[in-house]
Amino acid sequence: MSHSHSSEIVQCDTIIKADEIVTQDETRRIIQDGGIAILNGYICGVGTFAEIESSFSSTQKLDLSGKIVLPGLINAHTHLPMTLFRGMADDLPLMEWLEKHIWPVERQLTQELLKVGAQVGCAELIRTGCTAFLNGYFHEQVTGDIAESSGIRAVLGEGFFSFPSPMFATANDCWEQNRKLKEYFNNSDLVRTAVTPHAVFTVKPDELQGSFELAEQLQIPWQIHLAESAVETNQCLKRYGLRPVKLLDTLGLLCKRTVLHHCVDITDAEIELLAENDVCVVHNPVSNLKLCSGIAPIQKMLDVGITVGLGTDGASSNNQLNLFREMAFAALLGKIRHRDASAIGAQTVLDMATRNSAICLGWPELGQIAINHPADLVALDISSPNLLPMYSSVSHLAYAATGMEVSMTMVAGKILYRDGNFTTISIKDLNNEVLEAKKWILRMIDTQKKSKKT
Amino acid sequence: MSHSHSSEIVQCDTIIKADEIVTQDETRRIIQDGGIAILNGYICGVGTFAEIESSFSSTQKLDLSGKIVLPGLINAHTHLPMTLFRGMADDLPLMEWLEKHIWPVERQLTQELLKVGAQVGCAELIRTGCTAFLNGYFHEQVTGDIAESSGIRAVLGEGFFSFPSPMFATANDCWEQNRKLKEYFNNSDLVRTAVTPHAVFTVKPDELQGSFELAEQLQIPWQIHLAESAVETNQCLKRYGLRPVKLLDTLGLLCKRTVLHHCVDITDAEIELLAENDVCVVHNPVSNLKLCSGIAPIQKMLDVGITVGLGTDGASSNNQLNLFREMAFAALLGKIRHRDASAIGAQTVLDMATRNSAICLGWPELGQIAINHPADLVALDISSPNLLPMYSSVSHLAYAATGMEVSMTMVAGKILYRDGNFTTISIKDLNNEVLEAKKWILRMIDTQKKSKKT
Ligand SMILES: [Zn+2]
Ligand SMILES: [Zn+2]
Repeated sequence: MSHSHSSEIVQCDTIIKADEIVTQDETRRIIQDGGIAILNGYICGVGTFAEIESSFSSTQKLDLSGKIVLPGLINAHTHLPMTLFRGMADDLPLMEWLEKHIWPVERQLTQELLKVGAQVGCAELIRTGCTAFLNGYFHEQVTGDIAESSGIRAVLGEGFFSFPSPMFATANDCWEQNRKLKEYFNNSDLVRTAVTPHAVFTVKPDELQGSFELAEQLQIPWQIHLAESAVETNQCLKRYGLRPVKLLDTLGLLCKRTVLHHCVDITDAEIELLAENDVCVVHNPVSNLKLCSGIAPIQKMLDVGITVGLGTDGASSNNQLNLFREMAFAALLGKIRHRDASAIGAQTVLDMATRNSAICLGWPELGQIAINHPADLVALDISSPNLLPMYSSVSHLAYAATGMEVSMTMVAGKILYRDGNFTTISIKDLNNEVLEAKKWILRMIDTQKKSKKT
Repeated sequence: MSHSHSSEIVQCDTIIKADEIVTQDETRRIIQDGGIAILNGYICGVGTFAEIESSFSSTQKLDLSGKIVLPGLINAHTHLPMTLFRGMADDLPLMEWLEKHIWPVERQLTQELLKVGAQVGCAELIRTGCTAFLNGYFHEQVTGDIAESSGIRAVLGEGFFSFPSPMFATANDCWEQNRKLKEYFNNSDLVRTAVTPHAVFTVKPDELQGSFELAEQLQIPWQIHLAESAVETNQCLKRYGLRPVKLLDTLGLLCKRTVLHHCVDITDAEIELLAENDVCVVHNPVSNLKLCSGIAPIQKMLDVGITVGLGTDGASSNNQLNLFREMAFAALLGKIRHRDASAIGAQTVLDMATRNSAICLGWPELGQIAINHPADLVALDISSPNLLPMYSSVSHLAYAATGMEVSMTMVAGKILYRDGNFTTISIKDLNNEVLEAKKWILRMIDTQKKSKKT
């Protein structure tokens, strides 16, 4: 017996064949007639299909002819259980929406209801090509369990508000809960945690610092809503004499671990400050429009080297959890915001939704198709009329795809969705559960209205 | 023999059963567990399914359980053959995009290629729930034939540019062509015509007037791009000393027959002038962002009673022909434009994409589900995860639907698309034709580049 000198055939689990691979690797390589080899949930080969076929042998072949394959998209800001409130109250400004519609219902939510919201959210994320998300809400263990059972990656943290907090008697209770949460998911390949104070207008300065110390101790990301609107800035100025970014800086909370959601009402000097301190920003363009907060100056942030990820925020202020739509909004709004039709181009928003979001999650191995990176992959059916013709796959991902052309979503080598079928979620059961949850919420709103009248 | 005194059973062609009907009728009635009866392409009954079932008898039943039914959406501004250029040149300002990328290729287009572009466009429109469109381009007979064979309604006109026009030696040649076009489609139930000068910066004042007289003679709409950007305004001021709206007013071209596409760079006084003259405006929010033209002040127009329809513009500046996405952009941008989170609500954008667009097309019977109106209907699958839960169907149509949840599109009682299958278009053949067309275009661009070098 003799072995070939030029090449040795390597055994792997799965070989994928696709029309085109948009790798999003260091050089943004795009491979025509591509192949990917997967072993134990990781990518072990990327190249032309001919190359992969001659180098690897596998039991499973995944024929994705007529499809392009890209890394799974990453939603760097959401509140998954709030999917339950999708379309419950539209066309309202941020503060009225929070205080009159969202918070009163949130206080009454049971873990059972929350679970339904998280499950709908996961289904939508998987359906529209998202393979990981950064979450903040209450009872995060529930959302983590749902992410785990759905097969999608999550980084999540117990949302913290200063007293009167709907969830915790003291800040220490919240820190303790976060420690337990990290412990609980310690052996999970899919779920990680982050420390998650809500905002500078809902958390006291010493508790912001306390939460940051916790993040340092646990060595996990520290995320907060910041500079979302002029209303927030004015509240912050009135209370502390400082604008939000400056407040965090004064408290010593701007660093590599820091993830800031929104940053709409922000000055050039503040952008410089964020860049100097290696802070991550997450852009949520649809939510910022819906709540009339404004359009964040993203091109300026990118120009000074800030890592900007992309998020949908909760479905209640979007009303989708669809990163394809979010990419289109980011690119299109960038042009108006900066009065420059070449600002925030197609490649830029694809970077935001993949590589940059991965960094925001503190999980930089995600968001690209490259050897030794996790096999989190999405296939898109390019025979859909709205993707014809295709001169540039990157242009189509940013501008022409709706997200519903996704024909396969894979996390860690496991298929979660393919050609209309979910492998980890029963959509029929989910529809029934959502119907019950909706009835419960409507009854509760009705009861609250009646009790106010009397 | 005796007849029942309380009711007589009426024979019809088709009875539809649906979870909910969003009628968009005069009172915006929404009917739970609804039914629609159809005879000879027209609606002859609307009500609860129980009511319809007890009043009508039909050979065909269409069970749309788990779906909501709405009137077909209407795209009030597009250039269908330009679908061929989708994603060919992105992230560029209007004038550079037109002069360097679109016009050089357009001049070379054959009717055969144009036909492919129109066919892809029709497929996307039908797939995303659009049942009628207002078009302007060259060789409009080709696009009309494609609309006819695809089964979708169209109002179209031969695009006119003053000398050097790529198509006509004299203005009269164009008017003659428009007369012939109207004649050609005289017996069509689906295709009508409109007079279509391109813009005030490409058509001379006397020819604008000539084209308007033609529209008066033919009793058809007169449509033009107007006030699309500040660049256009400045050109118009320089050449005529008047802003675009004022120029049209001076020429006597503002009236009920007038349809203005864009109106982004427009003053409050000009908006009043349009209202006084019963002019229709078509809003194209995505195209206006992509070409960095601005955001049109739509709420102001609606407040003074202007009929504002919704359009996508060509796929080359969008890059979709999807009115669901366009509704979301219209609603979300409206809030930022008017600094009011309650501006341009969900019901408003649905009105724009149905009833208002119908008026822009000069076809006001379209865009609503009511007795004696054409049976142009769309069904949406509400079990899709991104539509769960559903508190308000109108909210979901505006904010949560991608357009790909459309499970059926019907025009004049005929099903054009259902559950993944087109009845009038072969998607496989179309994919092959588009591939050939793309090759031709790339070869041509390559030839042009080479000839410029030498
Ligand atoms: Zn948020
Ligand atoms: Zn146009």
